[in-house]
Amino acid sequence: MSGRNTRTMSPITATYRVTAAPADVAHVAQAIALEQSVELPAAAVHDAFVAERIVARVAGIRPRDDGRHDVAIELAAETTGGDVAQLVNMLFGNSSLHAHVELVDVAWPAEFVARFAGPRHGAAGLRRLLGAGARPLTCAALKPQGLPVERLAALAYTLAAAGIDVVKDDHGLADQAYSPFAARVEACQRAIDRAAADTGHRALYAPSVVGSPRRAALQVRQARDAGAGALLLAPALLGLPAFAELVHEDVAVPVLAHPAFGGATRLAHPLLIGTLFRLLGADAVIFPHSTGRFAFGEAVCREIAARARAPLGRLAPVLPVPAGGLQVEGVPAALAFYGDDVMLLIGGSLLVEPDRVGERAARFVAAVREAGAQPAAATAAAR
Amino acid sequence: MSGRNTRTMSPITATYRVTAAPADVAHVAQAIALEQSVELPAAAVHDAFVAERIVARVAGIRPRDDGRHDVAIELAAETTGGDVAQLVNMLFGNSSLHAHVELVDVAWPAEFVARFAGPRHGAAGLRRLLGAGARPLTCAALKPQGLPVERLAALAYTLAAAGIDVVKDDHGLADQAYSPFAARVEACQRAIDRAAADTGHRALYAPSVVGSPRRAALQVRQARDAGAGALLLAPALLGLPAFAELVHEDVAVPVLAHPAFGGATRLAHPLLIGTLFRLLGADAVIFPHSTGRFAFGEAVCREIAARARAPLGRLAPVLPVPAGGLQVEGVPAALAFYGDDVMLLIGGSLLVEPDRVGERAARFVAAVREAGAQPAAATAAAR
Repeated sequence: MSGRNTRTMSPITATYRVTAAPADVAHVAQAIALEQSVELPAAAVHDAFVAERIVARVAGIRPRDDGRHDVAIELAAETTGGDVAQLVNMLFGNSSLHAHVELVDVAWPAEFVARFAGPRHGAAGLRRLLGAGARPLTCAALKPQGLPVERLAALAYTLAAAGIDVVKDDHGLADQAYSPFAARVEACQRAIDRAAADTGHRALYAPSVVGSPRRAALQVRQARDAGAGALLLAPALLGLPAFAELVHEDVAVPVLAHPAFGGATRLAHPLLIGTLFRLLGADAVIFPHSTGRFAFGEAVCREIAARARAPLGRLAPVLPVPAGGLQVEGVPAALAFYGDDVMLLIGGSLLVEPDRVGERAARFVAAVREAGAQPAAATAAAR
Repeated sequence: MSGRNTRTMSPITATYRVTAAPADVAHVAQAIALEQSVELPAAAVHDAFVAERIVARVAGIRPRDDGRHDVAIELAAETTGGDVAQLVNMLFGNSSLHAHVELVDVAWPAEFVARFAGPRHGAAGLRRLLGAGARPLTCAALKPQGLPVERLAALAYTLAAAGIDVVKDDHGLADQAYSPFAARVEACQRAIDRAAADTGHRALYAPSVVGSPRRAALQVRQARDAGAGALLLAPALLGLPAFAELVHEDVAVPVLAHPAFGGATRLAHPLLIGTLFRLLGADAVIFPHSTGRFAFGEAVCREIAARARAPLGRLAPVLPVPAGGLQVEGVPAALAFYGDDVMLLIGGSLLVEPDRVGERAARFVAAVREAGAQPAAATAAAR
């Protein structure tokens, strides 16, 4: 079999955070290595090629201050078969069922990363499309679901006319009877176009595409036909393999990744949102900022932003998009934290007073432009 | 908008297990209801239709002995837009990111369940295809990955000739260079055919299909062309929407669902494996038995088996398939626990001695046939 004679590729190193008594950690680490490769006791591996090239190896065990251990395991890159679903399987398939094991990081060989196209536009491409230079960007959401198409389109006009850079659908907007996808996207894009004609400011509209693979592909075509300039996709909801395939086979515009259903707590958020979403093709990654209604701490937010921007093979850096309860009053602090290479997303708090949405959105836009170019903790941390 | 004038469908009731101080639970429950529907503060919902029909409602809060609370929330079925991805989004999209919230159960209105085709064969269909009557069934796995095609095919012959009912690929077998999918499936199915000709016992072969949606669909066609009688699919790995679409659009044979990547701890295993996998089309559901190397307790295993068999609209009952470190010696206890309406899966322990695989597999088959028809705790519990 030629596949058993090819040269060895460098291994993928996965780091698992393990809860175990110190005396048991070495045994637990070895068990993970077997579980994530041959799924057999070592005694049942009789083939030399399998023993040498396929069985995963424990590369290191490091105690942490919290009593847990970080276990580094080298996985044979060949086991992934060049497929996203199988990559996830090899990284965390069976071990996800172990309550004492969390996947916290992955180190990729350069030749492995080189197989991924990654983001098509990245942060720089998104900025070019918006003609935005290096300033921080703004994003707002069309919501709540349940509104009819014409009300959502009116809101799109208001937000775009106020100067918001990216107007996205709420991730709860799908293809519901009260605002069917095709009609909604067409109407909202026309509203964005009218705002551009009236004000000279052209926002990008990112419809929320959510569905099983063929339905999602249909929605992508409908969005393209309507002229939508971006898309909102939730990789964990669509499934990571379906997300990757859709982005690379069907999508041409920038992709904002939404974290919905990404809450498998034992897959660390910086890895999932900052690294995997980017590897699989997101151009911007939305996540809850530490001051909002989700309990992502500052360290996690800083790490997600750092990973979005850090070198990763030849993949384009992508935009961090903090969200989840941001307020206009919090803009200066958020920009001080993330720096200018960011898109701030404010959703619900722009919509509290229905008659003042445009005014609040304009205040948001102004606050971001005023507060830009401040010293930034997260940018510094990422360098 | 006609979608805003249709009659109200009964709500879906999702139960979330919440970690919060007793004084805060009512507030947390209301926050979940908003997060999982309109994703807005209540004060920002100005539309009467949205307020009455779309905003989710807290239906009950029940304290538990462990200090947590079970919060029942009624979600508008209309928000799911008849799509699996959007259903998951509405059940646990943003709330999955809250470390204090776990999704533990869902009560479905009958009219909602009626939209799902569910399992095509179910437990009864699988038994018919195997000509197995009411006895417990046996399942074994082709592994480890890394073996060449001819070695895997030889193992398939050995296991089938020993009388195993379902011979499945290890879930780590994908489309790797050392055993490419199409060649492997063709060779293993031919081996199963030869065993049937030689012994009169016809096993079903379940190749592991893993990949992004279009690659998975190609593998399904290749498996069909090779005459494979069943398939192994990991719904959480493929993505729940991709799994459901694949099963209903492309698959005709029975589907064994593998739990890989299903370890989002805050989505309760009985709900995910026992209910959702079945709703989305699995005919048999694999899960770690309590005596094995995964920490699924007896109560969880009993509950998964009960859900696989319990009435669920008009959907066929499906086969529970306990696995994950079962041994031949444990067969009587496992059958006493689950009863006869079960398929036992033994993987690695059949393969420890390479020259005695057939002998061990035959002992497994004999042990299951001898121990069948015992009183069964889990069967009783499920009725």
